Amino acid sequence: MNAVVLLSGGLDSYTAGAVARAEGYELYALTIRYGQLHARELDAARGVARALGVILQRELHVDLAAFGGSSLLGDGEIPRDRLLDEASGIPSTYVPARNTVFLSLALAWAEVVSARAIVIGVNALDYSGYPDCRPEYLAAFERLAALATRAGVEGRPLSVFAPLLHLSKAEIIQRGVALGLDYGLTHSCYQPGTDGRPCRQCDSCRLRARGFREAGVMDPIEARATS
Amino acid sequence: MNAVVLLSGGLDSYTAGAVARAEGYELYALTIRYGQLHARELDAARGVARALGVILQRELHVDLAAFGGSSLLGDGEIPRDRLLDEASGIPSTYVPARNTVFLSLALAWAEVVSARAIVIGVNALDYSGYPDCRPEYLAAFERLAALATRAGVEGRPLSVFAPLLHLSKAEIIQRGVALGLDYGLTHSCYQPGTDGRPCRQCDSCRLRARGFREAGVMDPIEARATS
Repeated sequence: MNAVVLLSGGLDSYTAGAVARAEGYELYALTIRYGQLHARELDAARGVARALGVILQRELHVDLAAFGGSSLLGDGEIPRDRLLDEASGIPSTYVPARNTVFLSLALAWAEVVSARAIVIGVNALDYSGYPDCRPEYLAAFERLAALATRAGVEGRPLSVFAPLLHLSKAEIIQRGVALGLDYGLTHSCYQPGTDGRPCRQCDSCRLRARGFREAGVMDPIEARATS
Repeated sequence: MNAVVLLSGGLDSYTAGAVARAEGYELYALTIRYGQLHARELDAARGVARALGVILQRELHVDLAAFGGSSLLGDGEIPRDRLLDEASGIPSTYVPARNTVFLSLALAWAEVVSARAIVIGVNALDYSGYPDCRPEYLAAFERLAALATRAGVEGRPLSVFAPLLHLSKAEIIQRGVALGLDYGLTHSCYQPGTDGRPCRQCDSCRLRARGFREAGVMDPIEARATS
């Protein structure tokens, strides 16, 4: 039973992939580069793909930066705090239609390898401000996929498997530790230093640190840095 | 009122864009290259974008060929006939999830330019074998977009405008001629010769020729070739 997993190199998608593997899926890892400020994530994604024992990994570049619209896509500083747009409550790091683009590309590959699922590491708690991290959004994508594809037409609909959807960061980490994952392979920082070390100040670093703290687990990246 | 139009350089998307413009939309043209066998279409798309007076045109490369799965994406010959997969009735030239990927990318840009619509030149008659050219598919994408985006969250849902959906090729051409379009700018052939001329044998060339014949209109490309 094949699944395409959207693998970023961060700890959420690694954990989601591992949960899918534990449930019996054979994994095809899709890593999408969309104009991030740094390439450290790609290295992490390759390491994570190896650790997950995926059948194939593909890296695809999609220049979402050509459209602008997010602080994650520009040349500017990533805001230290998750600044919210006052009107909508949507963070400035929100990338327009990001998950729709990612799921669509995964869908294209899923059709070719006859996958029964797309695995995505979104969670609705930490990313509550992102419209495309909500359960009702994922359900709508599943309905779209059933109409969009050959498999759907033939009565083999594809599911969106988002095992972290209702977990906190701490719960995600506990789940991964129970599965024996090495989070030292992962990368979360939006703005790593030139030596590749996490900044410990950006939103993503702080969410990660809080998650490990609340999980009662030492972050292997921190363990390594202090040893 | 802004709209993002998916502009391929073919006559359908040109006509769809012109209908949208006639209805008052200001157009942002998105041309997506996804591993076609030739680049002639890109030149045509630029010419068509100029003719439509678009505010901006963006070209984006997405390497769907990395996934394989369609005769339009490989190195092989395009089949002369629209060969159908016997099980599903889906043509071998079907590109997996193509319209979902295209609409998603258009959605990303639509968010940034606050577009109220995505314009797409699909029609359900000539492409009856493609699951992602059906009205119910487009309606599902609209529902997805309402959940996926900042605009949707804020109560400004985006519509998918597909003015050719129920028209035959001949009716599309008659509509375009009535709008004063120069179809000499467009390109339809899947396998043009080294001189850029259409092959007149591929599925797309034959659909086009039949459309002009049934519309009772001379194809300006043919008129030019025979003059």
